[in-house]
Amino acid sequence: MFHVDINSDVGESFGNLTYGRDVENMEYLTSVNVACGFHSGDPTVMRRTVEMAHKRGIAIGVHPGLPDLQGFGRRKMDVDPEEAHDFILYQIGSLDAFARVANVKLTHVALHGALSGMCKTNEPLARAIITAIKEYNPELIFPGMPGLASYEIAKEMGLKVACIVPIDLDFRKDGQSIIERKKTARDPKVVARKALKLVTTGKLETVDGVDKEIKVDMLLMHGDGATATEIMQEVRNVLTNAGVKIEPFPNFV
Amino acid sequence: MFHVDINSDVGESFGNLTYGRDVENMEYLTSVNVACGFHSGDPTVMRRTVEMAHKRGIAIGVHPGLPDLQGFGRRKMDVDPEEAHDFILYQIGSLDAFARVANVKLTHVALHGALSGMCKTNEPLARAIITAIKEYNPELIFPGMPGLASYEIAKEMGLKVACIVPIDLDFRKDGQSIIERKKTARDPKVVARKALKLVTTGKLETVDGVDKEIKVDMLLMHGDGATATEIMQEVRNVLTNAGVKIEPFPNFV
Amino acid sequence: MFHVDINSDVGESFGNLTYGRDVENMEYLTSVNVACGFHSGDPTVMRRTVEMAHKRGIAIGVHPGLPDLQGFGRRKMDVDPEEAHDFILYQIGSLDAFARVANVKLTHVALHGALSGMCKTNEPLARAIITAIKEYNPELIFPGMPGLASYEIAKEMGLKVACIVPIDLDFRKDGQSIIERKKTARDPKVVARKALKLVTTGKLETVDGVDKEIKVDMLLMHGDGATATEIMQEVRNVLTNAGVKIEPFPNFV
Amino acid sequence: MFHVDINSDVGESFGNLTYGRDVENMEYLTSVNVACGFHSGDPTVMRRTVEMAHKRGIAIGVHPGLPDLQGFGRRKMDVDPEEAHDFILYQIGSLDAFARVANVKLTHVALHGALSGMCKTNEPLARAIITAIKEYNPELIFPGMPGLASYEIAKEMGLKVACIVPIDLDFRKDGQSIIERKKTARDPKVVARKALKLVTTGKLETVDGVDKEIKVDMLLMHGDGATATEIMQEVRNVLTNAGVKIEPFPNFV
Repeated sequence: MFHVDINSDVGESFGNLTYGRDVENMEYLTSVNVACGFHSGDPTVMRRTVEMAHKRGIAIGVHPGLPDLQGFGRRKMDVDPEEAHDFILYQIGSLDAFARVANVKLTHVALHGALSGMCKTNEPLARAIITAIKEYNPELIFPGMPGLASYEIAKEMGLKVACIVPIDLDFRKDGQSIIERKKTARDPKVVARKALKLVTTGKLETVDGVDKEIKVDMLLMHGDGATATEIMQEVRNVLTNAGVKIEPFPNFV
Repeated sequence: MFHVDINSDVGESFGNLTYGRDVENMEYLTSVNVACGFHSGDPTVMRRTVEMAHKRGIAIGVHPGLPDLQGFGRRKMDVDPEEAHDFILYQIGSLDAFARVANVKLTHVALHGALSGMCKTNEPLARAIITAIKEYNPELIFPGMPGLASYEIAKEMGLKVACIVPIDLDFRKDGQSIIERKKTARDPKVVARKALKLVTTGKLETVDGVDKEIKVDMLLMHGDGATATEIMQEVRNVLTNAGVKIEPFPNFV
Repeated sequence: MFHVDINSDVGESFGNLTYGRDVENMEYLTSVNVACGFHSGDPTVMRRTVEMAHKRGIAIGVHPGLPDLQGFGRRKMDVDPEEAHDFILYQIGSLDAFARVANVKLTHVALHGALSGMCKTNEPLARAIITAIKEYNPELIFPGMPGLASYEIAKEMGLKVACIVPIDLDFRKDGQSIIERKKTARDPKVVARKALKLVTTGKLETVDGVDKEIKVDMLLMHGDGATATEIMQEVRNVLTNAGVKIEPFPNFV
Repeated sequence: MFHVDINSDVGESFGNLTYGRDVENMEYLTSVNVACGFHSGDPTVMRRTVEMAHKRGIAIGVHPGLPDLQGFGRRKMDVDPEEAHDFILYQIGSLDAFARVANVKLTHVALHGALSGMCKTNEPLARAIITAIKEYNPELIFPGMPGLASYEIAKEMGLKVACIVPIDLDFRKDGQSIIERKKTARDPKVVARKALKLVTTGKLETVDGVDKEIKVDMLLMHGDGATATEIMQEVRNVLTNAGVKIEPFPNFV
């Protein structure tokens, strides 16, 4: 029997500006990554998001980003490993305050946007960030993709890792996703079919026409495409109907 | 025998802009309030400040402010109790991340600038903030002045309180300090004399010519006047020479 | 024959976060107030908004706010007249850059949110702001309401004024609107009826049950209610059908 | 007879945090580049800086930076040409507001920090920025170094250019300066000797031991080293004593 987690970034509204349909999306999710005010999110959004996720039994993780509100953390920035280490700790601590008060334990740290992208190849940066996570709490799980610097360093340094695949993006044959600064609307059926194949056969379709072998734990879907909620719903339905167990990844990783 | 704590706000540098002489000032301090990135401070400044203070045995507290970097948290803002509650939690958590990693416990939460000022009279705001502190950790001490809303609510809600006097400011006969948006340079000898009188007789000199009775635990000196370091040094010397024991306030409060 | 301008705040999106339906709303508007990056808006949003409005012959004005992105400029802040003067100039200049390059003249400066609210009664603040507008360009028109400090000072200092009424809000019998931090959805038919009565009879309905006499030039509708676009459309249709000429206010003020 | 301009970045204080000694430095400068609130600076600092420079007959230019207050605009960011174009216009306009009100014309646009660094090699980015400058005012001069993308594109597109050399930095034999995120203190005598040689012989000393030929118009000195003011004073004295005429570069470029 197969099981998988359905994951998304949430809490990316800011002040009076709403981003994504978190309330609806959470119906379909088993884990979430909560923004911490650097690329988006604010303290009140964070608190409400933690409360909402906790009420539904969703695994709650930190979603730290670059200090770039205007660019939504999707512009690469030349940050030093030292400062990256520090702003990771800052963001983990800030979210953990809301988790502690809500009496729930944070389960993971999933890097956001360009910060995640840079850590795929920049080893000193990845090492600084993994160090920060481990210093704070060595039980935090690090979602990533095998072969990337951040994932391999996390594993090497003794963090538990989980394999996360952004299933609503396109992939190249090396397994790398093709990042979009603004998400395009995808056909929920196409994404759901790709998801089912990946979960049940371990094969990820790529734009290069060949499949990439990968054992997935978490299916990441972004909340900001026009069809985001529909994708989550369809993926969840298709997988459930196929007998896949949808549950928070800390249960089985 | 008398004892008192010498306290100051620190960690108020931001990026490439330096504020105050923290390294020198810490020679004379027994407790500090560390800025958390809202009115000033950034993650790297926070980490270094916590490390530096911890190395010297200084009691470390949170110094949360309004989200107003440009105004240095010294402009009143009409924030809701709910959002104030949330950004207090956010700031406590962010600093606590560095404290946890440095293996030191935070001892107190001292409000900054206009936020502190507003909570002197705004009861719903004060209650929201004290609630946040208590929810996070009921052992955190709240420095304030007897008679003010924030202090009295903290006490009523079961937080330990400490009496803090900003000895480098002027006072009115009701015990209220006269806030300055930019600090003026003070004569260290004058401040030290006022401090000694307050600690040893319980009498606080006011600009109205009469003394106000007050039992002080912490002498707060601001780090941003031109003579700030000299004031701290002189106050410490004069008190020490008079036999007053200078020590972190959590030792005796 | 009656004429009136239909006005709204636009350009309040920020980075990846969209606010309001500017493209649709502009179908119904004859003048707009463009945010300048302080309470919301960013340089690319500003440029596109100016271009879009210019293409449709809409009168373009500055919509300066308090430096409070998180609070969307809707929280009062104790800013000094001097600093308010300076950030008004800054915001006017920043928008004017896009107007100059698009070869269009800015027509007015309409204050945003809490800044607008404070200037209704705070005379030194209002005077500092009107001074900044006049220093930059004495031909800029100041939309406001008769009787309020900002409007009267603008008039007294020689600026041209226009009477603007936020017709999608409720009013008290003194003519003051009841500000909402987040807009509630209104019934388009109700707003349109109120608008028609105001334009054709000079009577503004209030929640106190009595009408307030007022000669309106601009009907302001906010872009952030759930029914905002529908309100604009309905108001425009109802007024047009009643023979009211809808045109940019600089044509007739 | 030789002439040269002495230039520095100014107006980089922010809120309560002071950066550099602008008042003292302006005694020695003939042109300045004023920060516009993105990497540092705020509206009040901008207005005062423009007024101060204007009073002394100093040529005033725009000093636009990346939107990165925390990193002081010294961290490279992957900004699109389109958004860079827009934030250049925004910053020019914002400073020009203060210049217009002070009745002075801006003379130039000198890029700051990492934005300047990226435009040395990134042609699409440089072209977008030069386009923005030219759209706003084709008479604005662009200070740069021959051979760099930004300088050559400015020249090609018809902007007047000036050759600027950051004489308080070290250089490689290709003429490139070695950027420092925080400036080190330099010996004023060493810098002054290098400056005199460059102005009078056209030879720039490099750390590679060979000289680079270059015809300089502007000697840039940074305001943030510990010896910054002393360097400016010494350079000015040594050049004046050697008969070099120190004057604003728009006089002779």
